[in-house]
Amino acid sequence: MSNPILVEVTRGSRVESRHRGSVAVVDAAGGIVHALGDVAAPVFPRSAIKVMQALPLIESGAADRYGFGDKELSLACASHSGEEGHVALAADLLRRAGLDERALECGCHWPSDSSAARALARQGRTPGPLHNNCSGKHTGFLCTAVAMGEATAGYIGAEHPVQARAKAAMEDLTGTSFGEDLSGIDGCSIPTYAAPLQSFAQGFAKLVSGTGVSAERAAAGQRLIAACVAEPWYMAGTGRACVALIEAGAGRVFVKTGAEGVFCGAVPELGLGFALKIDDGAGRAAEISTAATLAQIFRDRDPEMASRYDGLAQKTLKNWNGMVVGELRAAKA
Amino acid sequence: MSNPILVEVTRGSRVESRHRGSVAVVDAAGGIVHALGDVAAPVFPRSAIKVMQALPLIESGAADRYGFGDKELSLACASHSGEEGHVALAADLLRRAGLDERALECGCHWPSDSSAARALARQGRTPGPLHNNCSGKHTGFLCTAVAMGEATAGYIGAEHPVQARAKAAMEDLTGTSFGEDLSGIDGCSIPTYAAPLQSFAQGFAKLVSGTGVSAERAAAGQRLIAACVAEPWYMAGTGRACVALIEAGAGRVFVKTGAEGVFCGAVPELGLGFALKIDDGAGRAAEISTAATLAQIFRDRDPEMASRYDGLAQKTLKNWNGMVVGELRAAKA
Repeated sequence: MSNPILVEVTRGSRVESRHRGSVAVVDAAGGIVHALGDVAAPVFPRSAIKVMQALPLIESGAADRYGFGDKELSLACASHSGEEGHVALAADLLRRAGLDERALECGCHWPSDSSAARALARQGRTPGPLHNNCSGKHTGFLCTAVAMGEATAGYIGAEHPVQARAKAAMEDLTGTSFGEDLSGIDGCSIPTYAAPLQSFAQGFAKLVSGTGVSAERAAAGQRLIAACVAEPWYMAGTGRACVALIEAGAGRVFVKTGAEGVFCGAVPELGLGFALKIDDGAGRAAEISTAATLAQIFRDRDPEMASRYDGLAQKTLKNWNGMVVGELRAAKA
Repeated sequence: MSNPILVEVTRGSRVESRHRGSVAVVDAAGGIVHALGDVAAPVFPRSAIKVMQALPLIESGAADRYGFGDKELSLACASHSGEEGHVALAADLLRRAGLDERALECGCHWPSDSSAARALARQGRTPGPLHNNCSGKHTGFLCTAVAMGEATAGYIGAEHPVQARAKAAMEDLTGTSFGEDLSGIDGCSIPTYAAPLQSFAQGFAKLVSGTGVSAERAAAGQRLIAACVAEPWYMAGTGRACVALIEAGAGRVFVKTGAEGVFCGAVPELGLGFALKIDDGAGRAAEISTAATLAQIFRDRDPEMASRYDGLAQKTLKNWNGMVVGELRAAKA
């Protein structure tokens, strides 16, 4: 059976393209509050669970040792756009741990923000590993390794303690044991592990509710989530959907995007987590679907919040002359 | 009923994302030689039918008047990457008709080729309308208007003779009457009209076979298609799928991409046309599906051609460190 159409792209009076996918909104006990499509099939969460991967940064004491505040913690959970502020803070964090960008093993790419990329080109420069959208997360890995007295070289490998701790945290939160069949390599070269959407959603619910997880882990997760919510620009960048979706929540909503159409998030006051995946991997659809999911969560609880997220679940599409040609919108259920 | 999965994206041993869509391979009489999914639903072809839109450029005599050779005709059918060669030739064509870039009404955007965009930024420049991927097509429109003694201002409007001729050519070839419900506005501000995939496929079959269409129109279409096949770089750009797919055909295959996951094409020697659309609009999937469609067309007729297109129907995915992380591949039927 195919997943339902979650997002439509229109042109004129017609639907031009359609995105299918699945959504799970779950409480800490695993109770499904809202679901669309198959939420039991394993899905690679990609960068949407960077908060889970950053738990050892706090649990190890490394974050306190190197003076991580909200901006720094948000950057450690980031898929950032490679803007100057992201790059500068990542470089500063590496310095605090006695390292520099040469320690980063994430690879190089031009900033995902095209303005930032062109600005770099305009200066006659080329990107380094600090511009990689994952450099903040990798900086967190490196700080943790240094704080634990571990070798930094090879910290991206599945067998390195840094990755073993991240995997254990994800297994703890999702209740999944990650065998070879659930393993892949992510864009930044670290392992990524697949689990059902409902398990990732439950994992975030556990963190924000403090239920079904150690007090220490819940505190670490809540500190990371609060940091991302306070400083969303550092986990994303200018004009990014994650920033708009968090800001619309006025401190009450956490979301994080991942490649191939994934979003995870949580509403701490309700003890709920959510996870969604667009079948075809489209980020534009995942953003709209996340807004629609949050509108759904708040529909009967807080109409004003629901209305704000309804607004983000629709986007007018204009062409190069600024003419309205269609829209991106959540499909009617 | 949903369309079938045409393309899979894998990571590790798992399918991470899936693209659904429909494909029609049709002869000039409308006989369906091969089809997947719904090929009767109207679809916006976007830039995949630029050859049809360029027919009046030849039929009006404008192409001969302004010395259009293969490169120029290919550019007039292009969604180019905004590289220097594209921009220079479009500027030259406008000069031949006594115009310059100020006549273009397509709007401006940074070159779609990121290297070309960064090169422009490195020179401290910003893009003009010549960098718009449709500037070649618009140049063809303008040359036709000048040759016909028509006003050039407003040539993008549905009521201008330039657009009326393009619409009439599309109606003739697809056998469709484009009412308001089938109309939209394209990225470059001209009208775009929706018709069934099988009708677009049949239209290309008519052109290459010379059946069911006037001899003059067939000759114009064959001249345009031959030009694109001879000079594919001018209708696309460095590293583009259209170039690879045409070059693999060694002069025997025409293809053209359109936004939102569309491809059209033809195999002149077989008198066949094809059209396909990925439901979710993903170009990466449309490219793979086009290769798979061509492999299918040649499977029993020419194993070597089929094998070349099978090769293009699979793409290894590497991350920023060059590690193989998965693949894009045609789904098994």
